[in-house]
Amino acid sequence: MITTLSTYQTRNNQQLNRWLEQLPHQDQSLIEAMRYGLLLGGKRIRPYLVYITGLMLGCQQEELDTPASAIECIHAYSLIHDDLPAMDDDSLRRGQPTCHIRFNEATAILTGDALQTLAFSILAEGTLAENAEPYRIKMIQALAQASGAMGMCMGQALDLEAERRQVTLHELEEIHRHKTGALIRCAVRLGALSAGEKGQAILPYLDRYADAIGLAFQVQDDILDIISDTQTLGKPQGSDSKHHKSTYPSLLGLDGAEQKTQSLLNEAIQTLASIPYNTDLLEQFARYVIERRS
Amino acid sequence: MITTLSTYQTRNNQQLNRWLEQLPHQDQSLIEAMRYGLLLGGKRIRPYLVYITGLMLGCQQEELDTPASAIECIHAYSLIHDDLPAMDDDSLRRGQPTCHIRFNEATAILTGDALQTLAFSILAEGTLAENAEPYRIKMIQALAQASGAMGMCMGQALDLEAERRQVTLHELEEIHRHKTGALIRCAVRLGALSAGEKGQAILPYLDRYADAIGLAFQVQDDILDIISDTQTLGKPQGSDSKHHKSTYPSLLGLDGAEQKTQSLLNEAIQTLASIPYNTDLLEQFARYVIERRS
Repeated sequence: MITTLSTYQTRNNQQLNRWLEQLPHQDQSLIEAMRYGLLLGGKRIRPYLVYITGLMLGCQQEELDTPASAIECIHAYSLIHDDLPAMDDDSLRRGQPTCHIRFNEATAILTGDALQTLAFSILAEGTLAENAEPYRIKMIQALAQASGAMGMCMGQALDLEAERRQVTLHELEEIHRHKTGALIRCAVRLGALSAGEKGQAILPYLDRYADAIGLAFQVQDDILDIISDTQTLGKPQGSDSKHHKSTYPSLLGLDGAEQKTQSLLNEAIQTLASIPYNTDLLEQFARYVIERRS
Repeated sequence: MITTLSTYQTRNNQQLNRWLEQLPHQDQSLIEAMRYGLLLGGKRIRPYLVYITGLMLGCQQEELDTPASAIECIHAYSLIHDDLPAMDDDSLRRGQPTCHIRFNEATAILTGDALQTLAFSILAEGTLAENAEPYRIKMIQALAQASGAMGMCMGQALDLEAERRQVTLHELEEIHRHKTGALIRCAVRLGALSAGEKGQAILPYLDRYADAIGLAFQVQDDILDIISDTQTLGKPQGSDSKHHKSTYPSLLGLDGAEQKTQSLLNEAIQTLASIPYNTDLLEQFARYVIERRS
Protein backbone atom coordinates (compact mmCIF):
# COMPACT_ATOMS: atom_id res chain seq x y z
CA MET A 1 0.00 0.00 0.00
CA ILE A 2 1.38 3.45 -0.92
CA THR A 3 1.11 5.94 1.97
CA THR A 4 -0.20 8.76 -0.17
CA LEU A 5 -2.90 6.46 -1.55
CA SER A 6 -4.52 6.15 1.86
CA THR A 7 -4.28 9.93 2.39
CA TYR A 8 -6.25 10.54 -0.78
CA GLN A 9 -8.66 7.71 0.00
CA THR A 10 -9.62 9.58 3.15
CA ARG A 11 -9.83 12.90 1.34
CA ASN A 12 -11.96 11.41 -1.42
CA ASN A 13 -14.30 9.78 1.11
CA GLN A 14 -14.80 13.09 2.88
CA GLN A 15 -15.55 14.82 -0.40
CA LEU A 16 -18.00 12.15 -1.52
CA ASN A 17 -19.72 12.26 1.83
CA ARG A 18 -20.10 16.02 1.52
CA TRP A 19 -21.84 15.59 -1.83
CA LEU A 20 -24.14 12.93 -0.42
CA GLU A 21 -25.04 15.08 2.57
CA GLN A 22 -26.30 17.79 0.27
CA LEU A 23 -28.98 15.55 -1.22
CA PRO A 24 -32.53 15.86 0.06
CA HIS A 25 -34.50 12.82 1.29
CA GLN A 26 -31.66 11.62 3.52
CA ASP A 27 -34.06 9.19 5.18
CA GLN A 28 -34.70 7.32 1.94
CA SER A 29 -33.01 3.99 1.35
CA LEU A 30 -31.83 5.25 -2.07
CA ILE A 31 -29.54 7.73 -0.29
CA GLU A 32 -28.47 5.09 2.24
CA ALA A 33 -27.62 2.74 -0.61
CA MET A 34 -25.69 5.45 -2.47
CA ARG A 35 -23.63 6.02 0.68
CA TYR A 36 -23.13 2.26 1.09
CA GLY A 37 -21.99 1.84 -2.51
CA LEU A 38 -19.72 4.89 -2.48
CA LEU A 39 -18.10 4.82 0.92
CA LEU A 40 -17.72 1.22 1.98
CA GLY A 41 -14.13 0.44 1.09
CA GLY A 42 -12.50 0.59 -2.29
CA LYS A 43 -8.97 1.49 -3.23
CA ARG A 44 -9.84 4.85 -4.81
CA ILE A 45 -7.39 4.26 -7.61
CA ARG A 46 -9.14 6.52 -10.09
CA PRO A 47 -9.37 9.52 -7.73
CA TYR A 48 -5.75 8.88 -6.76
CA LEU A 49 -4.70 9.12 -10.41
CA VAL A 50 -6.59 12.40 -10.75
CA TYR A 51 -4.77 13.77 -7.69
CA ILE A 52 -1.24 12.67 -8.54
CA THR A 53 -1.50 13.75 -12.17
CA GLY A 54 -2.90 17.15 -11.22
CA LEU A 55 -0.40 17.67 -8.37
CA MET A 56 2.47 16.83 -10.71
CA LEU A 57 1.26 19.67 -12.95
CA GLY A 58 1.09 22.16 -10.09
CA CYS A 59 -2.57 21.93 -9.04
CA GLN A 60 -3.59 22.27 -5.40
CA GLN A 61 -5.36 19.29 -3.79
CA GLU A 62 -8.62 21.19 -3.45
CA GLU A 63 -8.59 21.95 -7.17
CA LEU A 64 -8.72 18.23 -7.86
CA ASP A 65 -11.52 17.21 -5.50
CA THR A 66 -14.24 17.74 -8.10
CA PRO A 67 -12.98 15.44 -10.88
CA ALA A 68 -11.72 12.92 -8.29
CA SER A 69 -15.19 12.68 -6.76
CA ALA A 70 -16.95 12.51 -10.09
CA ILE A 71 -14.91 9.63 -11.45
CA GLU A 72 -15.30 7.59 -8.27
CA CYS A 73 -19.10 7.95 -8.57
CA ILE A 74 -18.92 6.42 -12.05
CA HIS A 75 -16.73 3.59 -10.79
CA ALA A 76 -19.03 2.89 -7.81
CA TYR A 77 -22.13 2.86 -10.00
CA SER A 78 -20.48 0.40 -12.39
CA LEU A 79 -19.60 -2.00 -9.58
CA ILE A 80 -23.16 -1.96 -8.24
CA HIS A 81 -24.63 -2.72 -11.66
CA ASP A 82 -21.95 -5.29 -12.56
CA ASP A 83 -22.72 -7.20 -9.36
CA LEU A 84 -26.44 -7.54 -10.17
CA PRO A 85 -27.84 -11.06 -10.62
CA ALA A 86 -28.44 -10.48 -14.34
CA MET A 87 -24.81 -9.40 -14.79
CA ASP A 88 -21.96 -11.01 -12.82
CA ASP A 89 -24.24 -12.12 -9.95
CA ASP A 90 -21.78 -11.42 -7.15
CA SER A 91 -22.86 -11.34 -3.53
CA LEU A 92 -19.60 -10.13 -1.99
CA ARG A 93 -17.65 -6.96 -2.78
CA ARG A 94 -14.89 -5.45 -0.69
CA GLY A 95 -15.67 -8.07 1.94
CA GLN A 96 -19.26 -6.86 2.31
CA PRO A 97 -22.61 -7.92 0.86
CA THR A 98 -23.13 -6.32 -2.57
CA CYS A 99 -25.72 -3.54 -2.85
CA HIS A 100 -28.57 -5.74 -4.15
CA ILE A 101 -27.97 -8.23 -1.32
CA ARG A 102 -27.78 -5.57 1.40
CA PHE A 103 -30.80 -3.68 0.00
CA ASN A 104 -32.68 -5.17 -2.93
CA GLU A 105 -32.32 -5.38 -6.68
CA ALA A 106 -34.56 -2.43 -7.52
CA THR A 107 -32.68 -0.21 -5.08
CA ALA A 108 -29.35 -1.38 -6.48
CA ILE A 109 -30.39 -0.50 -10.03
CA LEU A 110 -31.61 2.95 -8.97
CA THR A 111 -28.54 3.52 -6.81
CA GLY A 112 -26.26 2.89 -9.76
CA ASP A 113 -28.39 5.16 -11.93
CA ALA A 114 -28.34 7.96 -9.37
CA LEU A 115 -24.58 7.64 -8.80
CA GLN A 116 -23.97 8.01 -12.50
CA THR A 117 -26.06 11.18 -12.51
CA LEU A 118 -24.25 12.43 -9.41
CA ALA A 119 -20.94 12.13 -11.25
CA PHE A 120 -22.12 14.56 -13.90
CA SER A 121 -23.71 16.86 -11.29
CA ILE A 122 -20.40 17.03 -9.46
CA LEU A 123 -18.39 17.80 -12.61
CA ALA A 124 -20.93 20.43 -13.65
CA GLU A 125 -21.23 22.11 -10.23
CA GLY A 126 -18.06 21.44 -8.23
CA THR A 127 -15.19 23.85 -7.72
CA LEU A 128 -12.32 23.77 -10.22
CA ALA A 129 -9.06 25.69 -10.48
CA GLU A 130 -9.71 29.04 -12.12
CA ASN A 131 -7.57 28.19 -15.12
CA ALA A 132 -9.39 24.86 -15.48
CA GLU A 133 -12.80 26.52 -15.78
CA PRO A 134 -12.56 26.67 -19.62
CA TYR A 135 -11.94 22.89 -19.56
CA ARG A 136 -15.02 21.98 -17.52
CA ILE A 137 -16.99 20.95 -20.59
CA LYS A 138 -14.01 18.95 -21.89
CA MET A 139 -13.95 17.11 -18.55
CA ILE A 140 -17.63 16.24 -18.87
CA GLN A 141 -17.04 15.07 -22.43
CA ALA A 142 -14.10 12.94 -21.33
CA LEU A 143 -16.05 11.34 -18.49
CA ALA A 144 -19.04 10.60 -20.70
CA GLN A 145 -16.87 9.14 -23.45
CA ALA A 146 -15.06 6.91 -21.00
CA SER A 147 -18.22 5.69 -19.27
CA GLY A 148 -20.79 5.05 -21.97
CA ALA A 149 -21.23 3.04 -25.13
CA MET A 150 -17.79 4.09 -26.36
CA GLY A 151 -16.11 3.03 -23.12
CA MET A 152 -16.97 1.22 -19.93
CA CYS A 153 -20.55 0.15 -20.78
CA MET A 154 -19.35 -1.30 -24.07
CA GLY A 155 -16.58 -3.11 -22.19
CA GLN A 156 -19.07 -4.76 -19.88
CA ALA A 157 -21.24 -5.67 -22.90
CA LEU A 158 -18.26 -7.20 -24.71
CA ASP A 159 -17.31 -9.03 -21.52
CA LEU A 160 -20.78 -10.55 -21.07
CA GLU A 161 -20.87 -11.49 -24.72
CA ALA A 162 -17.49 -13.24 -24.37
CA GLU A 163 -18.55 -15.37 -21.41
CA ARG A 164 -18.58 -19.09 -21.92
CA ARG A 165 -16.52 -18.94 -25.08
CA GLN A 166 -12.81 -18.86 -25.74
CA VAL A 167 -11.61 -15.39 -26.71
CA THR A 168 -8.36 -14.39 -28.38
CA LEU A 169 -5.77 -12.26 -26.64
CA HIS A 170 -6.73 -9.41 -28.93
CA GLU A 171 -10.39 -9.70 -27.93
CA LEU A 172 -9.48 -9.83 -24.26
CA GLU A 173 -7.46 -6.62 -24.59
CA GLU A 174 -10.35 -4.98 -26.41
CA ILE A 175 -12.68 -5.89 -23.54
CA HIS A 176 -10.38 -4.51 -20.86
CA ARG A 177 -9.40 -1.44 -22.83
CA HIS A 178 -13.08 -0.51 -22.65
CA LYS A 179 -14.18 -2.03 -19.36
CA THR A 180 -11.46 -0.71 -17.05
CA GLY A 181 -8.90 1.01 -19.30
CA ALA A 182 -11.18 3.81 -20.49
CA LEU A 183 -11.93 5.06 -16.97
CA ILE A 184 -8.29 4.85 -15.85
CA ARG A 185 -7.22 6.83 -18.90
CA CYS A 186 -10.00 9.30 -18.09
CA ALA A 187 -8.74 9.70 -14.50
CA VAL A 188 -5.32 10.76 -15.74
CA ARG A 189 -6.92 13.04 -18.33
CA LEU A 190 -9.11 14.72 -15.71
CA GLY A 191 -6.00 15.39 -13.65
CA ALA A 192 -4.33 16.91 -16.71
CA LEU A 193 -7.38 19.00 -17.66
CA SER A 194 -7.46 20.34 -14.09
CA ALA A 195 -4.13 22.00 -14.80
CA GLY A 196 -5.53 23.82 -17.82
CA GLU A 197 -3.29 24.47 -20.83
CA LYS A 198 -0.28 22.82 -19.22
CA GLY A 199 -1.87 19.39 -19.12
CA GLN A 200 -2.84 19.44 -22.79
CA ALA A 201 0.77 19.40 -23.96
CA ILE A 202 1.66 16.09 -22.33
CA LEU A 203 -1.67 14.35 -22.96
CA PRO A 204 -0.28 11.82 -25.48
CA TYR A 205 2.29 10.57 -22.93
CA LEU A 206 -0.25 10.50 -20.13
CA ASP A 207 -2.61 8.48 -22.33
CA ARG A 208 0.12 5.95 -23.11
CA TYR A 209 1.05 5.69 -19.42
CA ALA A 210 -2.60 5.24 -18.45
CA ASP A 211 -3.21 2.61 -21.13
CA ALA A 212 -0.25 0.57 -19.91
CA ILE A 213 -1.15 0.70 -16.21
CA GLY A 214 -4.85 0.21 -16.96
CA LEU A 215 -4.12 -3.04 -18.74
CA ALA A 216 -1.52 -4.06 -16.14
CA PHE A 217 -4.13 -3.49 -13.44
CA GLN A 218 -6.49 -5.91 -15.15
CA VAL A 219 -3.85 -8.58 -15.77
CA GLN A 220 -2.85 -8.33 -12.10
CA ASP A 221 -6.52 -8.64 -11.11
CA ASP A 222 -6.72 -11.85 -13.12
CA ILE A 223 -3.56 -13.15 -11.47
CA LEU A 224 -4.84 -12.30 -7.99
CA ASP A 225 -8.11 -14.07 -8.75
CA ILE A 226 -6.04 -17.26 -8.98
CA ILE A 227 -3.34 -16.83 -6.35
CA SER A 228 -5.11 -14.89 -3.55
CA ASP A 229 -7.58 -16.13 -0.99
CA THR A 230 -11.11 -14.80 -0.65
CA GLN A 231 -10.38 -12.90 2.55
CA THR A 232 -7.55 -10.88 1.03
CA LEU A 233 -9.50 -10.16 -2.14
CA GLY A 234 -12.75 -9.16 -0.42
CA LYS A 235 -14.60 -11.09 -3.09
CA PRO A 236 -14.82 -14.80 -3.81
CA GLN A 237 -11.47 -16.17 -5.01
CA GLY A 238 -11.70 -17.98 -8.32
CA SER A 239 -14.84 -16.12 -9.42
CA ASP A 240 -13.47 -15.69 -12.95
CA SER A 241 -13.25 -19.40 -13.52
CA LYS A 242 -16.69 -19.78 -11.89
CA HIS A 243 -18.02 -17.52 -14.64
CA HIS A 244 -15.93 -19.36 -17.25
CA LYS A 245 -14.26 -16.10 -18.12
CA SER A 246 -11.22 -15.93 -20.33
CA THR A 247 -8.39 -14.28 -18.41
CA TYR A 248 -4.76 -13.43 -19.06
CA PRO A 249 -3.49 -16.40 -17.04
CA SER A 250 -5.90 -18.71 -18.87
CA LEU A 251 -4.54 -17.48 -22.23
CA LEU A 252 -0.89 -16.89 -21.33
CA GLY A 253 -0.34 -19.10 -18.30
CA LEU A 254 0.51 -17.63 -14.91
CA ASP A 255 4.13 -16.98 -15.87
CA GLY A 256 3.11 -15.41 -19.15
CA ALA A 257 0.65 -13.14 -17.37
CA GLU A 258 3.32 -12.06 -14.90
CA GLN A 259 5.70 -11.29 -17.76
CA LYS A 260 2.92 -9.26 -19.35
CA THR A 261 2.50 -7.08 -16.22
CA GLN A 262 6.26 -6.59 -16.13
CA SER A 263 6.45 -5.47 -19.74
CA LEU A 264 3.47 -3.12 -19.25
CA LEU A 265 5.21 -1.66 -16.19
CA ASN A 266 8.36 -1.07 -18.27
CA GLU A 267 6.29 0.61 -20.96
CA ALA A 268 4.62 2.88 -18.39
CA ILE A 269 7.92 3.88 -16.84
CA GLN A 270 9.60 4.52 -20.18
CA THR A 271 6.70 6.76 -21.18
CA LEU A 272 7.07 8.81 -18.00
CA ALA A 273 10.62 9.67 -19.06
CA SER A 274 9.14 11.95 -21.74
CA ILE A 275 7.19 14.01 -19.21
CA PRO A 276 9.11 17.10 -18.02
CA TYR A 277 7.68 17.09 -14.50
CA ASN A 278 8.33 15.11 -11.35
CA THR A 279 6.78 11.75 -12.22
CA ASP A 280 7.80 9.93 -9.01
CA LEU A 281 4.27 9.36 -7.76
CA LEU A 282 3.09 8.13 -11.16
CA GLU A 283 6.01 5.71 -11.29
CA GLN A 284 5.41 4.53 -7.73
CA PHE A 285 1.78 3.95 -8.62
CA ALA A 286 2.68 1.90 -11.70
CA ARG A 287 4.80 -0.38 -9.49
CA TYR A 288 2.01 -0.65 -6.95
CA VAL A 289 -0.42 -1.78 -9.67
CA ILE A 290 1.51 -4.96 -10.36
CA GLU A 291 2.90 -5.54 -6.88
CA ARG A 292 -0.38 -5.28 -4.96
CA ARG A 293 -1.79 -8.40 -3.35
CA SER A 294 -5.48 -7.33 -3.26
CA MET B 1 -52.58 14.42 -31.69
CA ILE B 2 -51.14 17.88 -32.35
CA THR B 3 -49.72 18.20 -35.90
CA THR B 4 -46.53 19.93 -34.76
CA LEU B 5 -45.92 17.16 -32.23
CA SER B 6 -45.48 14.59 -34.98
CA THR B 7 -43.20 16.96 -36.92
CA TYR B 8 -40.87 17.22 -33.96
CA GLN B 9 -41.14 13.50 -33.23
CA THR B 10 -39.68 12.87 -36.67
CA ARG B 11 -37.03 15.52 -36.23
CA ASN B 12 -36.05 14.15 -32.83
CA ASN B 13 -35.85 10.59 -34.16
CA GLN B 14 -33.54 11.70 -36.95
CA GLN B 15 -31.33 13.52 -34.48
CA LEU B 16 -31.18 10.58 -32.08
CA ASN B 17 -30.39 8.24 -34.93
CA ARG B 18 -27.54 10.51 -36.00
CA TRP B 19 -26.04 10.30 -32.49
CA LEU B 20 -26.39 6.52 -32.43
CA GLU B 21 -24.76 6.16 -35.84
CA GLN B 22 -21.65 7.90 -34.57
CA LEU B 23 -21.00 5.22 -31.96
CA PRO B 24 -18.41 2.53 -32.70
CA HIS B 25 -19.23 -1.19 -32.35
CA GLN B 26 -22.45 -0.85 -34.39
CA ASP B 27 -22.62 -4.64 -34.62
CA GLN B 28 -22.90 -5.06 -30.85
CA SER B 29 -26.28 -5.81 -29.31
CA LEU B 30 -25.74 -2.94 -26.86
CA ILE B 31 -26.01 -0.48 -29.76
CA GLU B 32 -28.94 -2.38 -31.24
CA ALA B 33 -30.70 -2.24 -27.88
CA MET B 34 -29.99 1.47 -27.50
CA ARG B 35 -31.59 2.04 -30.91
CA TYR B 36 -34.53 -0.17 -29.95
CA GLY B 37 -35.09 1.69 -26.68
CA LEU B 38 -34.67 5.15 -28.20
CA LEU B 39 -36.41 4.93 -31.53
CA LEU B 40 -39.27 2.48 -31.23
CA GLY B 41 -42.25 4.73 -30.69
CA GLY B 42 -42.83 7.19 -27.90
CA LYS B 43 -44.62 10.52 -27.92
CA ARG B 44 -41.47 12.67 -27.61
CA ILE B 45 -43.23 15.00 -25.19
CA ARG B 46 -40.04 16.18 -23.49
CA PRO B 47 -38.23 17.05 -26.73
CA TYR B 48 -41.42 18.71 -27.95
CA LEU B 49 -41.46 20.95 -24.86
CA VAL B 50 -37.83 21.88 -25.48
CA TYR B 51 -38.70 22.83 -29.07
CA ILE B 52 -41.87 24.84 -28.42
CA THR B 53 -40.38 26.72 -25.48
CA GLY B 54 -37.23 27.59 -27.41
CA LEU B 55 -39.13 28.53 -30.58
CA MET B 56 -41.40 30.82 -28.58
CA LEU B 57 -38.26 32.64 -27.42
CA GLY B 58 -36.91 33.04 -30.94
CA CYS B 59 -34.59 30.03 -31.25
CA GLN B 60 -34.20 28.19 -34.54
CA GLN B 61 -35.16 24.50 -34.63
CA GLU B 62 -31.57 23.39 -35.14
CA GLU B 63 -30.51 25.29 -32.05
CA LEU B 64 -32.82 23.08 -29.99
CA ASP B 65 -31.84 19.67 -31.34
CA THR B 66 -29.11 19.12 -28.75
CA PRO B 67 -31.15 19.56 -25.54
CA ALA B 68 -34.16 17.84 -27.13
CA SER B 69 -32.06 14.77 -27.93
CA ALA B 70 -30.37 14.72 -24.53
CA ILE B 71 -33.58 14.78 -22.53
CA GLU B 72 -35.15 12.02 -24.62
CA CYS B 73 -32.13 9.80 -23.88
CA ILE B 74 -32.75 10.25 -20.16
CA HIS B 75 -36.43 9.45 -20.58
CA ALA B 76 -35.70 6.36 -22.69
CA TYR B 77 -33.16 5.05 -20.19
CA SER B 78 -35.62 5.48 -17.34
CA LEU B 79 -38.30 3.50 -19.14
CA ILE B 80 -35.90 0.62 -19.84
CA HIS B 81 -34.83 0.42 -16.20
CA ASP B 82 -38.35 0.94 -14.83
CA ASP B 83 -39.58 -1.99 -16.93
CA LEU B 84 -37.01 -4.43 -15.48
CA PRO B 85 -38.27 -7.45 -13.53
CA ALA B 86 -36.89 -6.07 -10.25
CA MET B 87 -38.69 -2.78 -10.83
CA ASP B 88 -42.15 -2.62 -12.46
CA ASP B 89 -41.71 -5.93 -14.29
CA ASP B 90 -43.44 -4.88 -17.50
CA SER B 91 -43.16 -6.91 -20.68
CA LEU B 92 -44.93 -4.53 -23.04
CA ARG B 93 -44.09 -0.91 -23.81
CA ARG B 94 -45.39 1.13 -26.74
CA GLY B 95 -47.01 -2.04 -28.04
CA GLN B 96 -43.66 -3.84 -28.26
CA PRO B 97 -41.71 -6.21 -26.01
CA THR B 98 -39.74 -4.26 -23.40
CA CYS B 99 -35.96 -4.12 -23.78
CA HIS B 100 -35.17 -6.95 -21.34
CA ILE B 101 -37.73 -9.20 -23.07
CA ARG B 102 -36.49 -8.40 -26.58
CA PHE B 103 -32.82 -8.69 -25.54
CA ASN B 104 -32.00 -9.83 -22.01
CA GLU B 105 -31.82 -8.31 -18.56
CA ALA B 106 -28.09 -7.62 -18.56
CA THR B 107 -28.32 -5.86 -21.91
CA ALA B 108 -31.31 -3.84 -20.70
CA ILE B 109 -29.41 -2.64 -17.63
CA LEU B 110 -26.38 -1.68 -19.71
CA THR B 111 -28.55 -0.05 -22.36
CA GLY B 112 -30.18 2.19 -19.78
CA ASP B 113 -26.77 3.02 -18.34
CA ALA B 114 -25.31 3.88 -21.74
CA LEU B 115 -28.33 5.99 -22.72
CA GLN B 116 -27.97 8.04 -19.56
CA THR B 117 -24.31 8.65 -20.41
CA LEU B 118 -25.25 9.49 -24.01
CA ALA B 119 -27.57 12.22 -22.72
CA PHE B 120 -24.66 13.97 -21.03
CA SER B 121 -22.38 13.39 -24.03
CA ILE B 122 -24.93 15.04 -26.27
CA LEU B 123 -25.36 18.06 -24.01
CA ALA B 124 -21.60 18.42 -23.66
CA GLU B 125 -20.80 18.00 -27.37
CA GLY B 126 -23.86 18.96 -29.42
CA THR B 127 -24.41 22.24 -31.24
CA LEU B 128 -26.12 25.06 -29.37
CA ALA B 129 -27.15 28.58 -30.35
CA GLU B 130 -24.18 30.91 -30.03
CA ASN B 131 -25.84 32.94 -27.29
CA ALA B 132 -26.70 29.73 -25.43
CA GLU B 133 -23.07 28.59 -25.23
CA PRO B 134 -22.54 30.26 -21.82
CA TYR B 135 -25.54 28.27 -20.57
CA ARG B 136 -24.25 24.84 -21.60
CA ILE B 137 -23.05 24.01 -18.09
CA LYS B 138 -26.34 25.24 -16.63
CA MET B 139 -28.14 22.85 -19.00
CA ILE B 140 -26.03 19.93 -17.81
CA GLN B 141 -26.68 20.93 -14.20
CA ALA B 142 -30.41 21.13 -14.88
CA LEU B 143 -30.52 17.74 -16.57
CA ALA B 144 -28.52 16.08 -13.79
CA GLN B 145 -30.64 17.65 -11.06
CA ALA B 146 -33.83 16.53 -12.76
CA SER B 147 -32.63 12.97 -13.40
CA GLY B 148 -30.82 11.83 -10.29
CA ALA B 149 -31.35 11.45 -6.57
CA MET B 150 -32.92 14.90 -6.40
CA GLY B 151 -35.36 14.14 -9.20
CA MET B 152 -36.44 11.21 -11.30
CA CYS B 153 -34.45 8.44 -9.58
CA MET B 154 -35.78 9.55 -6.21
CA GLY B 155 -39.29 9.57 -7.67
CA GLN B 156 -38.95 5.97 -8.77
CA ALA B 157 -37.53 5.05 -5.34
CA LEU B 158 -40.45 6.77 -3.59
CA ASP B 159 -42.85 5.04 -5.96
CA LEU B 160 -41.42 1.59 -5.26
CA GLU B 161 -41.44 2.30 -1.54
CA ALA B 162 -45.11 3.32 -1.75
CA GLU B 163 -46.21 0.14 -3.49
CA ARG B 164 -48.62 -2.07 -1.60
CA ARG B 165 -49.52 0.61 0.89
CA GLN B 166 -52.06 3.41 0.88
CA VAL B 167 -50.43 6.79 0.27
CA THR B 168 -51.85 10.23 0.92
CA LEU B 169 -52.58 12.69 -1.87
CA HIS B 170 -49.60 14.73 -0.68
CA GLU B 171 -47.29 11.69 -0.92
CA LEU B 172 -48.62 10.84 -4.37
CA GLU B 173 -47.87 14.37 -5.59
CA GLU B 174 -44.39 14.15 -4.08
CA ILE B 175 -43.76 10.92 -6.01
CA HIS B 176 -44.90 12.35 -9.31
CA ARG B 177 -43.25 15.72 -8.84
CA HIS B 178 -39.99 13.75 -8.79
CA LYS B 179 -40.74 10.81 -11.03
CA THR B 180 -42.17 12.61 -14.05
CA GLY B 181 -42.51 16.27 -13.03
CA ALA B 182 -38.79 16.97 -12.66
CA LEU B 183 -37.96 15.96 -16.22
CA ILE B 184 -40.90 17.84 -17.73
CA ARG B 185 -39.85 20.97 -15.85
CA CYS B 186 -36.31 20.36 -17.10
CA ALA B 187 -37.51 20.12 -20.71
CA VAL B 188 -39.08 23.57 -20.51
CA ARG B 189 -35.99 24.92 -18.76
CA LEU B 190 -33.69 23.52 -21.45
CA GLY B 191 -35.81 25.28 -24.06
CA ALA B 192 -35.51 28.52 -22.08
CA LEU B 193 -31.75 28.16 -21.54
CA SER B 194 -31.33 27.60 -25.28
CA ALA B 195 -32.53 31.17 -25.79
CA GLY B 196 -29.84 32.53 -23.48
CA GLU B 197 -30.55 35.60 -21.33
CA LYS B 198 -34.08 35.97 -22.64
CA GLY B 199 -35.26 32.66 -21.20
CA GLN B 200 -33.94 33.40 -17.71
CA ALA B 201 -36.39 36.26 -17.17
CA ILE B 202 -39.50 34.14 -17.56
CA LEU B 203 -38.19 31.01 -15.82
CA PRO B 204 -40.51 31.28 -12.77
CA TYR B 205 -43.58 31.28 -15.04
CA LEU B 206 -42.24 28.47 -17.17
CA ASP B 207 -41.55 26.42 -14.04
CA ARG B 208 -45.10 26.94 -12.81
CA TYR B 209 -46.53 26.02 -16.22
CA ALA B 210 -44.35 22.91 -16.38
CA ASP B 211 -45.26 21.82 -12.85
CA ALA B 212 -48.96 22.06 -13.66
CA ILE B 213 -48.79 20.16 -16.94
CA GLY B 214 -46.34 17.63 -15.50
CA LEU B 215 -48.77 16.71 -12.77
CA ALA B 216 -51.74 16.84 -15.16
CA PHE B 217 -49.88 14.45 -17.44
CA GLN B 218 -49.54 11.94 -14.62
CA VAL B 219 -53.15 12.25 -13.46
CA GLN B 220 -54.27 11.71 -17.06
CA ASP B 221 -51.99 8.67 -17.29
CA ASP B 222 -53.68 7.23 -14.22
CA ILE B 223 -57.10 7.93 -15.73
CA LEU B 224 -56.16 6.30 -19.04
CA ASP B 225 -54.88 3.24 -17.20
CA ILE B 226 -58.47 2.69 -16.10
CA ILE B 227 -60.55 3.80 -19.08
CA SER B 228 -58.39 2.79 -22.08
CA ASP B 229 -57.83 -0.60 -23.59
CA THR B 230 -54.44 -2.28 -23.86
CA GLN B 231 -54.18 -1.76 -27.62
CA THR B 232 -54.64 2.02 -27.41
CA LEU B 233 -52.24 2.33 -24.49
CA GLY B 234 -49.50 0.12 -25.95
CA LYS B 235 -49.05 -1.38 -22.48
CA PRO B 236 -51.31 -3.61 -20.41
CA GLN B 237 -54.46 -1.77 -19.31
CA GLY B 238 -55.00 -1.85 -15.56
CA SER B 239 -51.30 -2.37 -14.78
CA ASP B 240 -51.45 0.17 -11.93
CA SER B 241 -54.03 -1.85 -10.04
CA LYS B 242 -52.07 -5.02 -10.87
CA HIS B 243 -49.17 -3.44 -8.99
CA HIS B 244 -51.51 -2.21 -6.21
CA LYS B 245 -50.35 1.30 -6.91
CA SER B 246 -52.08 4.29 -5.40
CA THR B 247 -53.30 6.54 -8.21
CA TYR B 248 -55.23 9.77 -8.48
CA PRO B 249 -58.47 7.98 -9.43
CA SER B 250 -58.01 5.58 -6.50
CA LEU B 251 -57.64 8.52 -4.12
CA LEU B 252 -60.02 11.04 -5.72
CA GLY B 253 -62.39 8.86 -7.73
CA LEU B 254 -62.54 9.10 -11.53
CA ASP B 255 -64.59 12.32 -11.44
CA GLY B 256 -62.26 13.86 -8.87
CA ALA B 257 -59.22 12.96 -10.98
CA GLU B 258 -60.82 14.55 -14.05
CA GLN B 259 -61.58 17.70 -12.09
CA LYS B 260 -57.95 17.72 -10.97
CA THR B 261 -56.66 17.66 -14.57
CA GLN B 262 -59.06 20.46 -15.43
CA SER B 263 -57.89 22.66 -12.58
CA LEU B 264 -54.23 21.98 -13.44
CA LEU B 265 -54.99 22.94 -17.06
CA ASN B 266 -56.54 26.20 -15.87
CA GLU B 267 -53.49 26.89 -13.72
CA ALA B 268 -51.15 26.25 -16.65
CA ILE B 269 -53.10 28.52 -18.96
CA GLN B 270 -53.36 31.32 -16.40
CA THR B 271 -49.61 31.17 -15.89
CA LEU B 272 -49.00 31.53 -19.61
CA ALA B 273 -50.83 34.87 -19.51
CA SER B 274 -47.79 36.34 -17.67
CA ILE B 275 -45.41 35.38 -20.48
CA PRO B 276 -44.89 38.21 -23.02
CA TYR B 277 -44.41 35.90 -26.02
CA ASN B 278 -46.71 33.90 -28.25
CA THR B 279 -47.70 31.04 -25.95
CA ASP B 280 -50.17 29.39 -28.36
CA LEU B 281 -48.18 26.16 -28.75
CA LEU B 282 -47.63 25.84 -25.00
CA GLU B 283 -51.36 26.33 -24.43
CA GLN B 284 -52.27 23.85 -27.14
CA PHE B 285 -49.91 21.34 -25.56
CA ALA B 286 -51.45 21.81 -22.11
CA ARG B 287 -54.85 20.98 -23.58
CA TYR B 288 -53.43 17.96 -25.39
CA VAL B 289 -52.01 16.61 -22.11
CA ILE B 290 -55.44 16.14 -20.57
CA GLU B 291 -57.37 15.40 -23.77
CA ARG B 292 -55.11 12.66 -25.11
CA ARG B 293 -56.43 9.11 -25.22
CA SER B 294 -53.09 7.26 -25.14
